[in-house]
Amino acid sequence: MSHDPSYAPAASIPGSRIRRIAALADEHPGTLRLFYGEDTLPTPDFIKAAGRGAIAENFTFYTPNAGFPELREAIAASYARLHRTETNADEIVTTASGMVAIALVCQATLSTEDSAILITPLWPNLSAAVRVTGAESIEIPLAFDETGFRLDFDRLEAAVKPNTRLLALASPGNPTGWTASHDDWERIVSFCERHDLWLLADGVYERLVFDREIAPSPWEIADARKRTIVTQSFSKTYRMTGWRIGYTIALAETANRLKTLQEFVVSHAAGFTQRAALAALEHGEAFVAESKLRYEKHRRIAIDRLRKIPGLVLAEPPGSFYVFPRLEGLTDSFAFCRGLVVEHRLGVAPGSAFGAGGEGHVRLCFAVDENVLREAIDRFEVAWNEYRRTL
Amino acid sequence: MSHDPSYAPAASIPGSRIRRIAALADEHPGTLRLFYGEDTLPTPDFIKAAGRGAIAENFTFYTPNAGFPELREAIAASYARLHRTETNADEIVTTASGMVAIALVCQATLSTEDSAILITPLWPNLSAAVRVTGAESIEIPLAFDETGFRLDFDRLEAAVKPNTRLLALASPGNPTGWTASHDDWERIVSFCERHDLWLLADGVYERLVFDREIAPSPWEIADARKRTIVTQSFSKTYRMTGWRIGYTIALAETANRLKTLQEFVVSHAAGFTQRAALAALEHGEAFVAESKLRYEKHRRIAIDRLRKIPGLVLAEPPGSFYVFPRLEGLTDSFAFCRGLVVEHRLGVAPGSAFGAGGEGHVRLCFAVDENVLREAIDRFEVAWNEYRRTL
Repeated sequence: MSHDPSYAPAASIPGSRIRRIAALADEHPGTLRLFYGEDTLPTPDFIKAAGRGAIAENFTFYTPNAGFPELREAIAASYARLHRTETNADEIVTTASGMVAIALVCQATLSTEDSAILITPLWPNLSAAVRVTGAESIEIPLAFDETGFRLDFDRLEAAVKPNTRLLALASPGNPTGWTASHDDWERIVSFCERHDLWLLADGVYERLVFDREIAPSPWEIADARKRTIVTQSFSKTYRMTGWRIGYTIALAETANRLKTLQEFVVSHAAGFTQRAALAALEHGEAFVAESKLRYEKHRRIAIDRLRKIPGLVLAEPPGSFYVFPRLEGLTDSFAFCRGLVVEHRLGVAPGSAFGAGGEGHVRLCFAVDENVLREAIDRFEVAWNEYRRTL
Repeated sequence: MSHDPSYAPAASIPGSRIRRIAALADEHPGTLRLFYGEDTLPTPDFIKAAGRGAIAENFTFYTPNAGFPELREAIAASYARLHRTETNADEIVTTASGMVAIALVCQATLSTEDSAILITPLWPNLSAAVRVTGAESIEIPLAFDETGFRLDFDRLEAAVKPNTRLLALASPGNPTGWTASHDDWERIVSFCERHDLWLLADGVYERLVFDREIAPSPWEIADARKRTIVTQSFSKTYRMTGWRIGYTIALAETANRLKTLQEFVVSHAAGFTQRAALAALEHGEAFVAESKLRYEKHRRIAIDRLRKIPGLVLAEPPGSFYVFPRLEGLTDSFAFCRGLVVEHRLGVAPGSAFGAGGEGHVRLCFAVDENVLREAIDRFEVAWNEYRRTL
């Protein structure tokens, strides 16, 4: 008599293809794991000690939705110092991950009738977070050649629809490493103003840039703040991927709305995790500098070795801890990456996971042990040479 | 030239009135804090030790979206044992809080064109989670008199609209303590089948029942499983409110969809928190029993003392750690509760926070120190006697 209940459209958004490669790797022991955006080293000891200490001190209760005031102060002070621009604690909302930060921004700015423009190739969760709200995700690829990725403003201009409400991008980009200059941000902001768009600027790799101290942020452009929301995470800078803590930066009125929405999503980041994040900000600069040296070295290894492999086009990424080479003639990166796991015990992320402009590329995370990185590139070279012969 | 960007409807959902009372209490030192659904004692030591140990052992990385397999196994085994019904690990999705569990269910089952029926008075976040999806929240109050709360099936039947997709309720209820019997669930399930509705059954207080071992669950009705999703949390049973960990129970296909959606909301519960939850399940029974004795004692104190106060109607709550008396003649519980903080340093939750049927009541959480509870009721008595004279 009765039928099965049916799902809402959000329940049919396909799972991450990176997660699917990871699941395949779990079935094939010995697979080198370069698919996630995660360092293979654990969280540094001084942060772990702070987290453990906070549990011992009973930071086990509900906290304010936006996080402890002292953490918001510390984030604001750190952002102001790094970007040489005023930032106040009431403009910070601590979130239970960078992912939550993005989800909250999408909920606050998008509904079913709207569309959002995303600069791709891009971490697929951003497009998915747009689609969870029911809005359309319009993907505009960066232009690519061996000199690097480049934002094509003409394509951006042509993509705007009457219902477009948001432009979302990451700088440094994941997987591309593309990093917006201050001039790029000026043009992006002017584009958003002309079309009355919100700007979601994801900056989780801002400390991992190799030609300067920190990636520029649109928050540095005072006039743009009323439409700018920066999303951030402690995951990449402080090797805290599993802890689930990030934040947003936006004017106080917007921050208040994001704070309220967080109550109805996850309520807040765990109290002891907030204390660990506070320790990261207060005592983390030496660690960040050391970490960056390590990534610089691995990046050099990856670039130099990959560039010797025929049929591969690699631009040097100015930021992030990924290389994202294009493989000439590759048309199904997901099938190729599945084969890498099954036949070569090598796990990398397929370019097609990252939306328009990603197919034909693969993403390797070089935040792994140096020997693992070298072995991974060896396996990759063998596999790619084999595969090329079949093209 | 350009305008300010505008917010989406979700960004205008008002904040929790419980959170507003809490914020007011923060401005008035010495306020007794009975407004949250949170024990004033910290997480027990054996769980804290497990969390600290897991950080030391580097459970600081990304985990599977549904949680570690061993935790899913342990949850399934525990649920099967307590409810004497088969439950498999692939039917469990560990979530980064009971709140996340509810948000995922709403996303998976509701979209803008839909409506959901909620049995109220109810924790306001459930109604808010419905509205975040753009769906309409239809509130159907329980009937109330001094013998207790009661579900009115005629009102329920009359409330269904063609676009209704979900029935959501909590048993034991927060704030009412109302607890569905197995027969109630049979009727509720039959109602859902007749109208092709999903059933969201929130069971976070299932261990806190005072006339039996555990509250019945609709999961015990095998035929209903294809439309049933149970949401759960470790917060109340194990005093883990600040940790952010819960779970869902649903057939594997639904579980898979919830798991995928979680990737785009918060990705997963923290790894070390999952390990702490595992310790709670493995070693927590003695603690749960002891905790329940304490709540039973406090409940008795609250009931006996409040029932002596004139102008107050209190039903004995069969479950939860709240009392939810009706105050005769009270028409603005939020204003009354604000006054309690400002003038009497007593913080309780206004009934109006809990939707239809809540106005005229207040919620006191008795999971506080016994002396605090006694002092709180003293202050309440003085304040209410004063207030009554103004009615």
